Amino acid sequence: MDINSEIAKLNWKREPYGLYEPIEYTLAAGGKRVRPQLAMIACQMFGGNEEEALPAALALEVFHNFTLLHDDVMDKADMRRGRPTVHVKWNENTAILSGDQMLIEAYKLLSDVPSDKLPKVLRLFNKMATEICEGQQYDVDFESMEHVTKDEYLMMIRLKTSVLLATALQIGAYIADADEQAQEALYQFGIAIGLAFQIQDDILDVWGDPKTFGKAVGGDISCNKKTFVYLEAMRRLGDEAKNLEQWYSQVLEDNTEKIAAVKAIFEQLGVREACENVVEDYTQKALAILDTLPQNVATDQLRHLAHKLHTRKD
Amino acid sequence: MDINSEIAKLNWKREPYGLYEPIEYTLAAGGKRVRPQLAMIACQMFGGNEEEALPAALALEVFHNFTLLHDDVMDKADMRRGRPTVHVKWNENTAILSGDQMLIEAYKLLSDVPSDKLPKVLRLFNKMATEICEGQQYDVDFESMEHVTKDEYLMMIRLKTSVLLATALQIGAYIADADEQAQEALYQFGIAIGLAFQIQDDILDVWGDPKTFGKAVGGDISCNKKTFVYLEAMRRLGDEAKNLEQWYSQVLEDNTEKIAAVKAIFEQLGVREACENVVEDYTQKALAILDTLPQNVATDQLRHLAHKLHTRKD
Repeated sequence: MDINSEIAKLNWKREPYGLYEPIEYTLAAGGKRVRPQLAMIACQMFGGNEEEALPAALALEVFHNFTLLHDDVMDKADMRRGRPTVHVKWNENTAILSGDQMLIEAYKLLSDVPSDKLPKVLRLFNKMATEICEGQQYDVDFESMEHVTKDEYLMMIRLKTSVLLATALQIGAYIADADEQAQEALYQFGIAIGLAFQIQDDILDVWGDPKTFGKAVGGDISCNKKTFVYLEAMRRLGDEAKNLEQWYSQVLEDNTEKIAAVKAIFEQLGVREACENVVEDYTQKALAILDTLPQNVATDQLRHLAHKLHTRKD
Repeated sequence: MDINSEIAKLNWKREPYGLYEPIEYTLAAGGKRVRPQLAMIACQMFGGNEEEALPAALALEVFHNFTLLHDDVMDKADMRRGRPTVHVKWNENTAILSGDQMLIEAYKLLSDVPSDKLPKVLRLFNKMATEICEGQQYDVDFESMEHVTKDEYLMMIRLKTSVLLATALQIGAYIADADEQAQEALYQFGIAIGLAFQIQDDILDVWGDPKTFGKAVGGDISCNKKTFVYLEAMRRLGDEAKNLEQWYSQVLEDNTEKIAAVKAIFEQLGVREACENVVEDYTQKALAILDTLPQNVATDQLRHLAHKLHTRKD
């Protein structure tokens, strides 16, 4: 079952076009479709019926894209996946309303989950959706907090990024009648690879190769974003934190000097290696969990995914 | 069972406060709570268990308030129910995110519907939510269309306002195990009173008494809103429509003269009485439907409500 073809089958040629065109646009932009794939893989791991898992898998992808649409409005981002964001191509009101409809469409897809499984799938989905909004709120709160601890940051990225991966896996397994322990194990695998993924993202933002990395290098430094890399540096600096804080209190037009200076501070402190070790730890934790689950093609696919997320350069 | 106390029992004292405070603020603003009451009344009409209908009733009210929150952002409205709107009191991003969470909270409440009823309730709710977004889109589309027919306008207000009332009634009846015909009858009753309500709203916007009417009189005229009143006037004017269109192409600081002039055109054409007759027709249609349903206290409550919506001055 090919997720991209299933997504392409969703019909958005409905009136009023002003509501549905932006939804079609958003979903047509592509993306790796990791989240629905995780749900399908987890279902396959337990010998479940793929047809039964598909509606939830699609719901997760539509939901994920809804969060991107509204996030782009809130972040005032002009581009996503190399194309203008919806509020730029159309307008802000369209981004809000079509985003709302995307969230509803996710719940419409969910309603095609087998009836006996619907109550729990709905609860898992709602819990995940809530946690993602909470993560987004914490992310916003942290922008105006002078001091954010690494634990707070990990909590935020767990909510904002990991729980979606974790829930996709758990839902897929639940639909295939996996027992509670297996569901929980897959959920924790998802949390672990999600954290590894986001911290790797933070590392690449500083040290990524512009040719392979999809975004401008140093974006987080430019925006004074307190990522895992920055927080590790602050932790190591202690009293000497002033210099770094100084750079991080500035909003500049040209960030070339700032990025170079901050990157140098990070490198002096050995922060890169420390962060890469944390990514490695979470990845190992994830792989260890996989060893406790049924060993089959699906498990190998998840091993491969964990490795890919860990070693990626983009 | 008192809806307002049940709403007050919902606990929003959760972290992150930035996400939940605006939700609490929005729900605390009051309002007549018509929609949840309709669900409860419909449930009572068929001797259903109120406890079973309550989660859906609350979901409908939370959903309704979510639509108001996002609508106010899109309309750039400063006040609602005599208080600053959320994007004014906090900011626009908060209004978007907390609004998203309110929609999710509605679905969380829905998940407490009895399991055997959940699949259908979810479908009814999703269909309603979709139609409301479609109605909102049509409303936006109409602003830039030179010619809107009365049928198009009725379609828009049916989607934007009526389907929520209709669905509240149908869900309440369904939970009480009313048969399909009864559910459909109540749905159509809801559509009829919703249309009567909105057209009455359009009439009051022109002829309401500022002392009793909650909003500034002539607001629709000031904004060139093509309401039922305006459309009826345009229909009667035919070739002489230019004068009215002239006023409706202007955006002014001081609308005193415009309101008086347009109101005079409406009165010359006898538009008020024509619109009031339409309100009366929809109300009679609604009451006729009630006569086909079980006759009890609940039916009387709905009769009373239809009458109240019809004769209200605010």
